[in-house]
Amino acid sequence: MASLRTLYAADGNPPELRTNMNVDFVINYKIPSEATVEAEAGFTQLIQALTKAGLASEVRRGVDHTSVLVFVKVASEKYLKSRIYRERVQDWLYGVRIKTPEKDVDKIFEQEPIVDAERLRLVYLLLTNPKNEGGAGITPKTGQWKYVESIFPLHNHAFNRKWIKQWSSKYVLNEEDVDQIRNQFGEKVAFYFAFLQSYFSFLVFPAAFGFASWLILGQYSWLYALVNSLWSVVFFEYWKKKELDLAVQWGVRGVSRIQLPRTAFQWDHEDADPVTGEAVKVYSTKKRLQTQLLQVPFAFICLLILGALYLFCFSVEIFIGEIYNGPFKSYLTFLPTIILTGLVPTLSTILGNLAEQLTEAENYETHDAHDAALTQKIFVVNFITSYTPYSFTAEKISSSEELTTQNFQINPDRLRTQVIYFTVTAQIVNFALEAVVPILKRKVFKKVKEVQTEFAHKNEKGDVVPADAPEEAAFLARVRNEAELDVYDVATDYREMVVQFGYLSLFSAIWPLAPVSFLINNWVELRSDAMKIAISSKRPIPWRADSIGPWLNALGFLSWFGSLVSSAIVFMFSGDSNGPGGEPSSITGWALLLTVLCAEHLYLAVQFAVRYGLNQMHSPGMHKERAERFQMRRNILAETMDNDVETKPLPDIPTGEKITRAALEEEARQASIRGHGTPEEAFWQRQQGMDETISIGRSLISKMAAANKTAKA
Amino acid sequence: MASLRTLYAADGNPPELRTNMNVDFVINYKIPSEATVEAEAGFTQLIQALTKAGLASEVRRGVDHTSVLVFVKVASEKYLKSRIYRERVQDWLYGVRIKTPEKDVDKIFEQEPIVDAERLRLVYLLLTNPKNEGGAGITPKTGQWKYVESIFPLHNHAFNRKWIKQWSSKYVLNEEDVDQIRNQFGEKVAFYFAFLQSYFSFLVFPAAFGFASWLILGQYSWLYALVNSLWSVVFFEYWKKKELDLAVQWGVRGVSRIQLPRTAFQWDHEDADPVTGEAVKVYSTKKRLQTQLLQVPFAFICLLILGALYLFCFSVEIFIGEIYNGPFKSYLTFLPTIILTGLVPTLSTILGNLAEQLTEAENYETHDAHDAALTQKIFVVNFITSYTPYSFTAEKISSSEELTTQNFQINPDRLRTQVIYFTVTAQIVNFALEAVVPILKRKVFKKVKEVQTEFAHKNEKGDVVPADAPEEAAFLARVRNEAELDVYDVATDYREMVVQFGYLSLFSAIWPLAPVSFLINNWVELRSDAMKIAISSKRPIPWRADSIGPWLNALGFLSWFGSLVSSAIVFMFSGDSNGPGGEPSSITGWALLLTVLCAEHLYLAVQFAVRYGLNQMHSPGMHKERAERFQMRRNILAETMDNDVETKPLPDIPTGEKITRAALEEEARQASIRGHGTPEEAFWQRQQGMDETISIGRSLISKMAAANKTAKA
Repeated sequence: MASLRTLYAADGNPPELRTNMNVDFVINYKIPSEATVEAEAGFTQLIQALTKAGLASEVRRGVDHTSVLVFVKVASEKYLKSRIYRERVQDWLYGVRIKTPEKDVDKIFEQEPIVDAERLRLVYLLLTNPKNEGGAGITPKTGQWKYVESIFPLHNHAFNRKWIKQWSSKYVLNEEDVDQIRNQFGEKVAFYFAFLQSYFSFLVFPAAFGFASWLILGQYSWLYALVNSLWSVVFFEYWKKKELDLAVQWGVRGVSRIQLPRTAFQWDHEDADPVTGEAVKVYSTKKRLQTQLLQVPFAFICLLILGALYLFCFSVEIFIGEIYNGPFKSYLTFLPTIILTGLVPTLSTILGNLAEQLTEAENYETHDAHDAALTQKIFVVNFITSYTPYSFTAEKISSSEELTTQNFQINPDRLRTQVIYFTVTAQIVNFALEAVVPILKRKVFKKVKEVQTEFAHKNEKGDVVPADAPEEAAFLARVRNEAELDVYDVATDYREMVVQFGYLSLFSAIWPLAPVSFLINNWVELRSDAMKIAISSKRPIPWRADSIGPWLNALGFLSWFGSLVSSAIVFMFSGDSNGPGGEPSSITGWALLLTVLCAEHLYLAVQFAVRYGLNQMHSPGMHKERAERFQMRRNILAETMDNDVETKPLPDIPTGEKITRAALEEEARQASIRGHGTPEEAFWQRQQGMDETISIGRSLISKMAAANKTAKA
Repeated sequence: MASLRTLYAADGNPPELRTNMNVDFVINYKIPSEATVEAEAGFTQLIQALTKAGLASEVRRGVDHTSVLVFVKVASEKYLKSRIYRERVQDWLYGVRIKTPEKDVDKIFEQEPIVDAERLRLVYLLLTNPKNEGGAGITPKTGQWKYVESIFPLHNHAFNRKWIKQWSSKYVLNEEDVDQIRNQFGEKVAFYFAFLQSYFSFLVFPAAFGFASWLILGQYSWLYALVNSLWSVVFFEYWKKKELDLAVQWGVRGVSRIQLPRTAFQWDHEDADPVTGEAVKVYSTKKRLQTQLLQVPFAFICLLILGALYLFCFSVEIFIGEIYNGPFKSYLTFLPTIILTGLVPTLSTILGNLAEQLTEAENYETHDAHDAALTQKIFVVNFITSYTPYSFTAEKISSSEELTTQNFQINPDRLRTQVIYFTVTAQIVNFALEAVVPILKRKVFKKVKEVQTEFAHKNEKGDVVPADAPEEAAFLARVRNEAELDVYDVATDYREMVVQFGYLSLFSAIWPLAPVSFLINNWVELRSDAMKIAISSKRPIPWRADSIGPWLNALGFLSWFGSLVSSAIVFMFSGDSNGPGGEPSSITGWALLLTVLCAEHLYLAVQFAVRYGLNQMHSPGMHKERAERFQMRRNILAETMDNDVETKPLPDIPTGEKITRAALEEEARQASIRGHGTPEEAFWQRQQGMDETISIGRSLISKMAAANKTAKA
């Protein structure tokens, strides 16, 4: 991959990066040497399934001698258009689009051309949708398709080069930049960048304020904690609004209502849907609930393992710092940090995998439900790994409080050291893990493979596998390269940012420079994440989304929890060493609880006010939606009102229906038929038409006035 | 009105109650003796406006010699139908109806006949809508129409008789009963009865549990408070779901999105809407905000006035109970109760009027915004009048705590006495005020008027105002009777129930029999409210609604606040007299805060769980909506897919497009034009069609397998 990096940097533009050969997707099909026959049969089925779904295919040699690459494109552009048209109509039916789709198909695509993301998504659905929905029904790595290693679109390197170049030379990203990502990688990825950019812009304020606080107010400042908490409310509420706005602008608002079934879902039995009559796959809710209950022991295990680890490190730290006096003391003090730095990410990964397996076992019907459940678990893991150390430190302070005054004084500093570690060191370590390690890893693997292949070639007499055609060789080498890249998972990036937001909202009162560090980190993060997608990941499947999804709840929770934690921290440590610590513990407890209670309710009140205030503000997305809705209503209403209903009250008889000649004659006829008519008819025939009603009314009024006058006289 | 009551009871069915003479609405038009000429001119304009809006009118003598009654019906049934059709289409456009309206108007009304409520609502809109929207633009009591005293529909006495008879002979009401109300009086009133019925049914549980608690656990029981709080959560969440369900069943879900402009709204200037281009009436947000800020002094005034009153009564109570030893002591102890009973309702009414004026001054554009603002203020008034007395009592206990042990012991009992007063006595007083006083008031007024009229008649020589026609006399007498009835305001009834719910959630731990009293009260309330509408009120305008509106927030707030207050009460008084009160106050404060904090968060957690649980449950309304949505989608999708787009991937070429002869020829032609074709074309021409791809792939696979085998050997 280093080659790509060099190419981008050197402004090279070799032909193999200039074209994707009209390939929509590449299927990496494994040929394990122990099951060649089975794999061969599966390959035949694969090509047949693709063809039946309307996809053209080409086959080439794979990454090494253990796979083939199947190149896929849509056979008929017209058919793809019909699928896209159908999806747009479906969007409209689900209320995602407001404008009624034109009946003229060509006009639709003229008004709103197909972007790359839309095309690739539709082709991917053609590949993976079940056969009864017109797809090829391919489910990578499972069942019939267990040898399908991966399905991925090819990077558009022309775009990627421009993108990376642009972003590395500009300080502030705007909406257009995010729109570009959306057209290329879909809304799900675009939402991440939009969120990160908003968060980054918002960070400028706490960074500036934090820096000023650090200079003027010092640590554990009431004012800083308060302003920081208010900021987190404003940011959270702002983002909720912004998110909605973007969804409307991108035409994906409410797209989460259109659920994509998970192919990995396993059902107990099929049942007829009471509403639609279609067969529905049913999985027992009780069984799922039982699996879901495993989350409780899961959370406890997380807490236990990580708690034990932290406790151990603390013990080591105290032992070395305060009891141990042997050799290498100055080096040994780093031991706990090294242990933590080494073990926490590993443990997080293990627990993350466990969370994934647990979610898999919960067996959700749809992608969204699955993602939400997984996100929730990952959030719990991260919450525990990231934030428990602080509770230990705080605990330790509380318990050691009464031992010696000197001991109490050093503790807030330890808390600060920890925050600095987690906000600066950990971010750098994380960056290294994320950006550098995968490249190294790939290099090593590549070397190993090369040696293996060389060894294989040495042993055989002549190459039996035909070589690539020279005009394709460079292109195929590039595709083989992309096939070996990691899959980009946007959840990892969200997780990192949400954890960071949590630090900011929970602990930044301890060290007000934290937001400054985050600001710098996120500037780099924005660019390194772009690099990660462009250079060290397969091109992501361009999924749609109308929000950052379950992470929104995590942000809201952290913002609220921050009001509790930061107020408690400030209360406990804000005074000088003889402050609250000097008074009896019962009073402190009382006041601490009162502080937390007040802070929480102040938080809720502010949230209410900010929400109300933001709702009053102008929103371009909502404006657009309103305009479209109005247009649609006017059109349809105009159309419907062409019917044979009377739309004017009485077009030709301004003085009332009753006095037209025809009406009079009709009445007379009716009356003659039924004798004197019903009492109702008699009632309404007393005054014939408007003028008579007026004259009788006026005479009544004047008579009444006269009577009243007489009465008064 | 007693006459109606007797008639209903005696099973009399006189002809004047049998027919409404096809009258849709009656306008009571005042003729003040000091402005006869002006009133006469206004009358002429009235009849003209009615006629122009497509309404037929008849005029008769009014209630006495100071008004005329204008009877209104729609002149053309066809025109009314077109208005109703138009409204149904509008509902569909706003997403209120899911089913696409039929193009055939007659079919629509066959499928879904017009009910009374719909008809009357549409006619009322014809009467009151501005002229540019096709209405007559009548705004009672204001501006041009200041002599229009009231506009009201006539009661359907046949229905009312059946209704009252049914309800007084059955214990439990079902959905059909509420549906009947909906068809007759509209969704807004029906929602009240549905709510009251649900609340009544739910009350059975706390009543039974409360009775058991009272017998076994005594007052201030932890268990009772906990169960009661859980119950309030369950009820609140249940109602939210039920409400949505009813809205779907009644086809009014989302109807609050269709806003009715307030005719009383006064605008600063007109402006073009940026979206629709239509003229919009604009009122300065800043000016409104300034008026809204008056709410703060308003709330303080309420608190001050009522606080002073309560303080006074307490002082009197203590003076009489503990210091005064003069004559009539046993009678004088009732003095505070009498003062409170007499003054609180009066003060509430005054403050309620003040709230109405304040809301009027805030000058909202729409009815919903106006109602929400008014409800909020009324809730504040009621919150203060209803619940502050307890804080005084609790306060007094806290302050007197340290004086004497004997004093402390009697205090919980005083609190209980107060709860009993407010839950039993006040309910009875309220019932009397609501049901008995209006009847008495009307009787007295009637007598006075009769005497006046008699006196007037005596003075004049012969009646100059023509008498009623004998066949109409009874009917007109009945209408005059109805014209003098009060306007039914559903907000008053909601207020009463919300305040009651507040007692239950806040204070019922003090006296667990409270829910029993409420259960009995609400059984009567359901019937007496029905009687109030049927007998002592004008028939209400059948407005639509999709919820109980702002009262829902009030319920939610009280339920949450109840978790705080009841936990605090139980904590303070649950121990025996030497319990928490005996320990140092700082510990008590600490523990009290912890209790409240825990209770609140337990409450929030339970709410979350209950909400989740209820969401999993089946809902008939949602089921119906889903079915309709599915049907609509299927229809439209089938319609749209008739277009000329290709819907099958490749109907006739199952083995891929590329190997048909035509395709081959075309390719050859293309290639000959451009020499050897583009690299992309060359790439896709390497394997011609599915079969070739398969055979080449298979050969690749077997060669690779062979190579691997050689390598291994």
